[in-house]
Amino acid sequence: MQIAAPYLLFLGDVTDDLAAKTAAGIAYWRPGNCLGQLRLPGCTPDLGLPDMTIAQAVARGARTMVVGVANRGGTIAPHWEPVLLEALAAGMDLASGLHQRLTSLPAVRDAAAKHGRHLFDVRHPDRDFAIATGAKRAGLRVLAVGTDCSIGKMYTALALEREMTARGMKASFRATGQTGILIAGTGVSVDAVVSDFVAGAVEWLCPENEADHWDVVEGQASVLHPSYAGVTLALVHGSQPDAMVMCHEPSRPHMRGLPGRPLPDLADCIAAHEAAARVTNPRAKVIGFAFNTSALSDDAATRLLLETEERFGMPAVDPVRTGVEPLVDILEEIEADALVR
Amino acid sequence: MQIAAPYLLFLGDVTDDLAAKTAAGIAYWRPGNCLGQLRLPGCTPDLGLPDMTIAQAVARGARTMVVGVANRGGTIAPHWEPVLLEALAAGMDLASGLHQRLTSLPAVRDAAAKHGRHLFDVRHPDRDFAIATGAKRAGLRVLAVGTDCSIGKMYTALALEREMTARGMKASFRATGQTGILIAGTGVSVDAVVSDFVAGAVEWLCPENEADHWDVVEGQASVLHPSYAGVTLALVHGSQPDAMVMCHEPSRPHMRGLPGRPLPDLADCIAAHEAAARVTNPRAKVIGFAFNTSALSDDAATRLLLETEERFGMPAVDPVRTGVEPLVDILEEIEADALVR
Repeated sequence: MQIAAPYLLFLGDVTDDLAAKTAAGIAYWRPGNCLGQLRLPGCTPDLGLPDMTIAQAVARGARTMVVGVANRGGTIAPHWEPVLLEALAAGMDLASGLHQRLTSLPAVRDAAAKHGRHLFDVRHPDRDFAIATGAKRAGLRVLAVGTDCSIGKMYTALALEREMTARGMKASFRATGQTGILIAGTGVSVDAVVSDFVAGAVEWLCPENEADHWDVVEGQASVLHPSYAGVTLALVHGSQPDAMVMCHEPSRPHMRGLPGRPLPDLADCIAAHEAAARVTNPRAKVIGFAFNTSALSDDAATRLLLETEERFGMPAVDPVRTGVEPLVDILEEIEADALVR
Repeated sequence: MQIAAPYLLFLGDVTDDLAAKTAAGIAYWRPGNCLGQLRLPGCTPDLGLPDMTIAQAVARGARTMVVGVANRGGTIAPHWEPVLLEALAAGMDLASGLHQRLTSLPAVRDAAAKHGRHLFDVRHPDRDFAIATGAKRAGLRVLAVGTDCSIGKMYTALALEREMTARGMKASFRATGQTGILIAGTGVSVDAVVSDFVAGAVEWLCPENEADHWDVVEGQASVLHPSYAGVTLALVHGSQPDAMVMCHEPSRPHMRGLPGRPLPDLADCIAAHEAAARVTNPRAKVIGFAFNTSALSDDAATRLLLETEERFGMPAVDPVRTGVEPLVDILEEIEADALVR
């Protein structure tokens, strides 16, 4: 799977910014890949990109129209279908992060075949994977882990990749969820892989590489999340991280979807992820924190990050407020150590 | 899924006992469900059951013909197909633990529809599952865990169920792999479930029950196995065990399929499973060991079991050599404690 850029971002007729979050993520992290947005009448979110017809987008070189919306049920609205067909006829591929597959629509499937276009249903794996071996691979890997789901792992991984690339380090973001895949143009939606093959899928996703190359792997959920921990553990084992960044939202009242279950203690969560990761990489360690402090005042956020640094003796950042430089400093140290070993 | 007994066990024309292991397991653990065996010319394994034609089996009340063989690739041999069709025409359902689905054979699918019979492909889930909640359910649960794959978890769970039932305890074996499912007539092949839903599938498999009822859950792999630990962790979380039995084969040179990777230390393996299980059941603990000592002499086995008991202060049995009575004694204590709480 390699989704061809540049993209036209299709927003349908959604009416809230949350529904356009996927497209917004692509526009934010890969502006160079985004030519414009296509909004149907009634659509209110605005990505700040030029509004474009399919013909205009193709004339400017668009290769793929991305269905960049999320909605309840994850379905493709029937009145979007003519737009999808028009994009295929105009020569674009289609990519979608919705649960309902593009390939489940007979007219879309037939049009793609007729015009020789690709359909990317990024939420569904498009290949088989081998069983994981756990064997150590050359290259370095950093994994975003966390105390819960939807707590900033993708954002943190992308912020790390951006800062690492800016410093001239070799870094590749490795996507494990649908928005990440649409941003990267490739990846594996690990929670949709049959359980026996998840660790193997992750080994495939971040393969052997140059000794100074970093895979910056998007994490999922938490090894302490009772709904999804199996996915997380396979991801931790398959990615055999040299470093992990612990993502956390200090103001969240309970684990996502589980009222009454508080988020785990940070020290417990670090211990659980380090113990898990050392099964495939004895050097694995948590190197710092990425907090989402958006619910706190500047003062409160600064105080909390400082307190956390003092308590654990490692950096605590908010990727949005403070950037991730102190974390990348540590990755540089790990890389330097690894290269002299 | 509820496979109707009694069974006719179909062995095809396999020529080694290992290939007939599934059928042998059914005959051993559920002799009352097995009317006879059907062997094609050239088949050498013998389950010790009467050889029977399909007509004879149906005359004696057989409800399901079970394809009780395993082979490389997990495929249904083309020359078995006429036998499968004959069984359907004679009024039996079909159940198979092979990877290739009965429903992938058009003639078999059509015959099942025509005759109103069921096809059970037990290696493949036949329903959707909800996301796990991790909420505590009434009833008691014991889970067989282990240092590796294929190390006696199913045998141990069935031996526990047999001993518990003999003592008048309320106990239900809960199958999580294909042989276990054919033995129990129901269950979920958890390694074939999409990773996001494995813990939820296990919550469904051992639901809320009477306060003194035990689910005796078949485990899979190990939370320390780099290929499959994600499956195991979801199973540990979903089954929220009150007690775990650690299965181990002391003479195994390395983890299954992973030359060079030794089995984990028993103490580490206990700590890892207890830490994992306490996410959904704070009372979870390993209560003892079930060793497969078949490669050892009687003396060596006795000595090893004693040494292990002394080292850990809990019972170490070989379910085949010594039975599981000391483990069930502890389950009785846990039950008594739970009922007065």
